[in-house]
Amino acid sequence: VVDNPKLCSFIMPAIIDRSPLMIAVSSGGAAPVFARLVRARLESTIPAAYGKLAQLSEHFRAQVKARFAQANDRRGFWERVLQGRIAELIFSGREAEAYAATETALAAAEPATVGEVYLVGAGPGDPDLLTFRALRLMQQADVLVYDRLVSSAILDLARRDAERIYVGKERNFHTLRQEEINRLLADLAKQGRRVCRLKGGDPFIFGRGGEEIDTLAAEGIPFQVVPGITAATGCAAYAGIPLTHRDYAQACMFVTGHLKDNSMNLNWAALCQPHQTIVIYMGLTGLDILCKELIEHGLPAVLPAALIEQGTLPQQRVFSGTLATLPSLVAGQDIRAPTLIIVGEVVRLRAKFGWYGAGQTALSPILRDR
Amino acid sequence: VVDNPKLCSFIMPAIIDRSPLMIAVSSGGAAPVFARLVRARLESTIPAAYGKLAQLSEHFRAQVKARFAQANDRRGFWERVLQGRIAELIFSGREAEAYAATETALAAAEPATVGEVYLVGAGPGDPDLLTFRALRLMQQADVLVYDRLVSSAILDLARRDAERIYVGKERNFHTLRQEEINRLLADLAKQGRRVCRLKGGDPFIFGRGGEEIDTLAAEGIPFQVVPGITAATGCAAYAGIPLTHRDYAQACMFVTGHLKDNSMNLNWAALCQPHQTIVIYMGLTGLDILCKELIEHGLPAVLPAALIEQGTLPQQRVFSGTLATLPSLVAGQDIRAPTLIIVGEVVRLRAKFGWYGAGQTALSPILRDR
Repeated sequence: VVDNPKLCSFIMPAIIDRSPLMIAVSSGGAAPVFARLVRARLESTIPAAYGKLAQLSEHFRAQVKARFAQANDRRGFWERVLQGRIAELIFSGREAEAYAATETALAAAEPATVGEVYLVGAGPGDPDLLTFRALRLMQQADVLVYDRLVSSAILDLARRDAERIYVGKERNFHTLRQEEINRLLADLAKQGRRVCRLKGGDPFIFGRGGEEIDTLAAEGIPFQVVPGITAATGCAAYAGIPLTHRDYAQACMFVTGHLKDNSMNLNWAALCQPHQTIVIYMGLTGLDILCKELIEHGLPAVLPAALIEQGTLPQQRVFSGTLATLPSLVAGQDIRAPTLIIVGEVVRLRAKFGWYGAGQTALSPILRDR
Repeated sequence: VVDNPKLCSFIMPAIIDRSPLMIAVSSGGAAPVFARLVRARLESTIPAAYGKLAQLSEHFRAQVKARFAQANDRRGFWERVLQGRIAELIFSGREAEAYAATETALAAAEPATVGEVYLVGAGPGDPDLLTFRALRLMQQADVLVYDRLVSSAILDLARRDAERIYVGKERNFHTLRQEEINRLLADLAKQGRRVCRLKGGDPFIFGRGGEEIDTLAAEGIPFQVVPGITAATGCAAYAGIPLTHRDYAQACMFVTGHLKDNSMNLNWAALCQPHQTIVIYMGLTGLDILCKELIEHGLPAVLPAALIEQGTLPQQRVFSGTLATLPSLVAGQDIRAPTLIIVGEVVRLRAKFGWYGAGQTALSPILRDR
């Protein structure tokens, strides 16, 4: 590969071949090694199946032109074919079905009027933690319905001309109630639109994704669910706290720390067990009560505990102490959502791994303490 | 830009401008809508900071040429700059530091001889669920150290010329013992190599990632940890089972189902609580014992339970029943690892959401039952 003339000349661009689709990369000689690295990246980012999809497009080009007199209608047809189920058939290796489905779509009198909803987990905040599937669907959608926990760096990656609808939720102030969100998603899809419902973390872990697809399923609206990196694993990795470890924790439990009438509705007996890690989502305002109850129900006051603020984002802060000390460590620190609390022996490992930025381990900047 | 002669062998290509880096997309007229969609995708896939990195490369080009007489040494220098900490500085908006670090690197007598280890979660199987960060590091690494739970579709995305080292682990047959893997990672890095330790799922949830970085930290070897979609959330989304749901489960617990001397070392009292979902990793061989113990410790025999085989992959199969019926449903089915077991009322929702492929909801193929 190294003596391939196409790659060795810095004036000739480096080529990614997905015939009939071709992609060229060049820095005009200014940064040849970088251009080569970008080419290598694109080579594996762009699935080989893209060539197959371009071939399908070429195959039906004349027929589509004959079928739709208006350029607008042609473009609409192709966008549906290349971004919808037919593309998914090609990507999953079912070419014959894809060609048959294209024939059917061409023969159909009218284009489908029902849209689709993508329930997408956007991960904990760092846009680098988006999945390929999440980004693809974000870029297909005509409408983006998002809430407060989706970072602006991630919103920036959506299609620029997509409509954006903000649906809350600030604490104690939901811009739209959950039932209204469920209704909104269904109504947008019924208008024939492709809706990306973007949620922080994972839609099926404290994301109320189940309630949203419940409405969609009841009304026969197509949907897809895309898992995301949940806050527990994202924050654990970026804070240096393994959630399980052979020597310290053989189980891990996820709960929420919502306060209701100044108390938490948690199964304290189940939480206060040895050899397990407890992860508490949304527990900041109830932190004092949480730590007090855990101690009262039998966990040692010296058990390590950490609070991670804005985990995985450049402004991430980690406060670590014990059940006894964490509330006072955090008090007066002007903490901003989202936060995550991790309780268990595993929190000790953070210091052991040199995660205090002592310089012994040259962590990448995003992993350092700030 | 569009009439840049270098790129004009392409018929009117669509351009992504990251000056001095330019990327052109064309189908030679065969599939124009598709070419435009690919351009839109690349536009948001390729960070704006790539232009800044190419500018840094252009800025130092003459100096690097003067410093390194050999083309090989120049290339080595650029690869370290463009894929290492300096690139991370640019990506996180710290340009001044990046330029200073490049000056320092140029002035240094010898290139650094210590490598780096990337502990990367590869997710549950579907390559579409890789994160951008995971793929980037897979493509930077000189060596790939992987185990059985990493799908071949994912391995195909690594750098082609990277060395690949398989370290097990079949059940009851670990190709390398954990201590040997820890040692191997440290030794490879000490040879100055960039090592990608690729693990199925998430490295900090039953991935023994903590043990591996323990050795690295002790020996002062730089490392990064990249979270992945853990099997629980991946399988839940692809099988249509929310792990939490306001009406059914306010907590979720992850455990492993390893058998030891024909029994499972689990805290049954903590597991057998109402209103929570239990996720069991690696529980296939102990399924009978698991279901029996859960019933004996107080969970209802009619509690819904599902086993997901090769979750998120095209060959995914889902067996759902109850604690009483699941073992016999699965018996004789020639189940292949990896598997995941989900126990709780939420398993009911799968049927409600039309996940049985009844055609009411036109799910994308990958979400259908097979």
